[in-house]
Amino acid sequence: MPSLFLKPKDTAIYEKEGFVIVAFAWVIMSAVGAVPFVISKTIPHYIDALFESVSGFTTTGASILNDIEVLPKSILFWRSFTNWIGGMGVLVFALAIMPEFNSGLMHAFRAETTGPTSGKLVSKMTFTARILYGIYIALTLIEMVMLLIGKMPLFDSICHAMATAGTGGFSIKNASIAAYNSTYIEMVVAVFMFLFGVNFNMFYLILIGQFGRIMKNEELRVYFITVVVSTIVIAWNIVGLYDNFGQAIRYSFFQVASLGSSTGFATTDFDTWPTLSKVILLCVMSVGGCAGSTGGGLKVSRLIILVKSSYADGRKMVRPRSVITIKSDGQTLQPQVVRNVRNFFVIAVGIVFATTLLISIEGNGDVISNFTASLSAINNTGPGLGAVGPTLNYSGYSYFAKMLLSFVMLAGRLEIFPMLVLLSPTTWKRR
Amino acid sequence: MPSLFLKPKDTAIYEKEGFVIVAFAWVIMSAVGAVPFVISKTIPHYIDALFESVSGFTTTGASILNDIEVLPKSILFWRSFTNWIGGMGVLVFALAIMPEFNSGLMHAFRAETTGPTSGKLVSKMTFTARILYGIYIALTLIEMVMLLIGKMPLFDSICHAMATAGTGGFSIKNASIAAYNSTYIEMVVAVFMFLFGVNFNMFYLILIGQFGRIMKNEELRVYFITVVVSTIVIAWNIVGLYDNFGQAIRYSFFQVASLGSSTGFATTDFDTWPTLSKVILLCVMSVGGCAGSTGGGLKVSRLIILVKSSYADGRKMVRPRSVITIKSDGQTLQPQVVRNVRNFFVIAVGIVFATTLLISIEGNGDVISNFTASLSAINNTGPGLGAVGPTLNYSGYSYFAKMLLSFVMLAGRLEIFPMLVLLSPTTWKRR
Repeated sequence: MPSLFLKPKDTAIYEKEGFVIVAFAWVIMSAVGAVPFVISKTIPHYIDALFESVSGFTTTGASILNDIEVLPKSILFWRSFTNWIGGMGVLVFALAIMPEFNSGLMHAFRAETTGPTSGKLVSKMTFTARILYGIYIALTLIEMVMLLIGKMPLFDSICHAMATAGTGGFSIKNASIAAYNSTYIEMVVAVFMFLFGVNFNMFYLILIGQFGRIMKNEELRVYFITVVVSTIVIAWNIVGLYDNFGQAIRYSFFQVASLGSSTGFATTDFDTWPTLSKVILLCVMSVGGCAGSTGGGLKVSRLIILVKSSYADGRKMVRPRSVITIKSDGQTLQPQVVRNVRNFFVIAVGIVFATTLLISIEGNGDVISNFTASLSAINNTGPGLGAVGPTLNYSGYSYFAKMLLSFVMLAGRLEIFPMLVLLSPTTWKRR
Repeated sequence: MPSLFLKPKDTAIYEKEGFVIVAFAWVIMSAVGAVPFVISKTIPHYIDALFESVSGFTTTGASILNDIEVLPKSILFWRSFTNWIGGMGVLVFALAIMPEFNSGLMHAFRAETTGPTSGKLVSKMTFTARILYGIYIALTLIEMVMLLIGKMPLFDSICHAMATAGTGGFSIKNASIAAYNSTYIEMVVAVFMFLFGVNFNMFYLILIGQFGRIMKNEELRVYFITVVVSTIVIAWNIVGLYDNFGQAIRYSFFQVASLGSSTGFATTDFDTWPTLSKVILLCVMSVGGCAGSTGGGLKVSRLIILVKSSYADGRKMVRPRSVITIKSDGQTLQPQVVRNVRNFFVIAVGIVFATTLLISIEGNGDVISNFTASLSAINNTGPGLGAVGPTLNYSGYSYFAKMLLSFVMLAGRLEIFPMLVLLSPTTWKRR
């Protein structure tokens, strides 16, 4: 199992190259992925098509389309497929089909998988990638079959299973999952959204029968408790809007699983919910899924590191002579990991503020719309509040704002640094 | 001059005690300061009075009063006076009048003054405190005289000069400074709001004739440039709402100086401004004034440290073998200072999110109102947007929310840690 608390090694020179490879691959993939939208004339303007493509691959699921149901099936499939391929990562896919180990790709793999640190399931990287994709394909198929059992048409089941697996959230219906008006389908999708926000190592541990290690995994526990508590509090908060507590739980759980895993499917217009529910949703959306999942956001493991290290620093203030080590899952947290995670957090908050400011220049959207659009972009969620609420879309933004949000979505998916390295002049200087 | 980049010493055992003294002093001062409101029956309920008292001493300037002008002069004076005494700090005042040096108080002094690190102007702490209060009194008097020249009545001039000096923002008029309808008065107040957001060491350097060091001060330069750029951009953004660019500059500069220094006076309802202007105001409000000023917020010096250290960490990623030292004002930034500042930032963001969530429980206020109320409380600014906009007040919140916001205002004024230490069970355990 990869450890969150690996001792940092001097691999940074390769890290940089891995970053550049990944960032380039994603920019090119997004640029090419926009072409089908343009040639099919479903999205005539290239910038709009690029936004849709980036949103798909980064598994954000934000759309500029006002009517999805008029699109041809090929384009609907393409949108869902971008969610699916972007979820696990295109370089992880390349690794999985490679015949042999390649050190350059290994570092690219590290940059493409999510979380504060990354490692290998098994000693060979190629095998790790194959196991990950195997689990990914299997879970996608299981969801598809379960949707078929719920009488969702085959094409719809394939598309929604792919969009769930990548935690993307592109639906083929204007009303998203609400279009099927089926509690069963909603619960299947909700449970799978939750599952795809779980670290894939957990599924590997199930395969090799190590259930004890799953039970002891702190990140999974925090993720699970967050979803359960948020679901109950929101249900209590919105119960007046629905027939009974059961219905409230139905809508609440779906939305918490959707935003907590950064998928972005909706079964109701949560922008009409009370303030508390909306704030909780913004919080779970900002935390996001577990490291090593297809989910976006800060990641639960980073939240754990931030909380534990702040607590430790606080204790050190009160008891300066005590020796405090921060542990998680039995391993000591290295100062360098704390430094990196805090730096990541500072930059992420900075990007959210800067993006909110820049997309406000042209006067589209109010403060809450622009703020949640930025938050949604970096967390790869999809919907926000106000003008970018769950029943609305991003078509109201200017091309400048769409380009900027596309960049932020890529930065969010690749966990910031690859995109910054790509922009840095130092990267391109001869030494 | 105190250095931002002092090498940390093992003074933490005293630091803790300083923290406890300061936190206690402020809680008691606020509790007692609420009494005049209750016995004068101007604010009958004690929790409301406590909110007003905390808001005054922490120089936030948020009010629960719907009509200020009906208050007796004694209470109006008391409100402004809490702003004034809270601005420089009550323990700094105690130090200034102390006959001799007291090491316990010195650590309390460090905890009460603002910024990432603090030090002494001159070798003796008592003298430092006296110099600071001397400058503070002198600047307050100068502002008062300049307001008198602008034909503001004497009582009004005293109150507004005190509220400006502490960057508090309690006015004695419902319409705040707009009540005087005088460009001269507005500009005097705006310039002084800006000045009280400057590190007081700068005024000391003027007194001892070291102008060169002022010119070279990085924090002052960034603060100045931020205010100028924000003023111009907002003026360009709001010009359509006013007669001409000059008028736009007048309103823009006043509001930027007001929120940038965390004072919170208003001359117009900036909640009706375009989104871009509001987002810029939220940004300057979050950054706040300089370290060692009476202003609130994150402080410009912390922003500089965050930006420089993130940049340095980014460069290290691209050029892992290079040795990167972060310098500011010619001195090297210690890793421990970076660690502390990042930790401060993480906790501050956490408090803003948690407060937004908690004050939403009772269903008062929408997301933007509750978010900006929390942001305004921790930054000690005063107004926010929406239900807590510049023409409105905090009377709509429940007692629970008012208590919570009072705690956050105190945490903001004392730069978080003293209030956390006060709450920590470890502080109260016998060893």
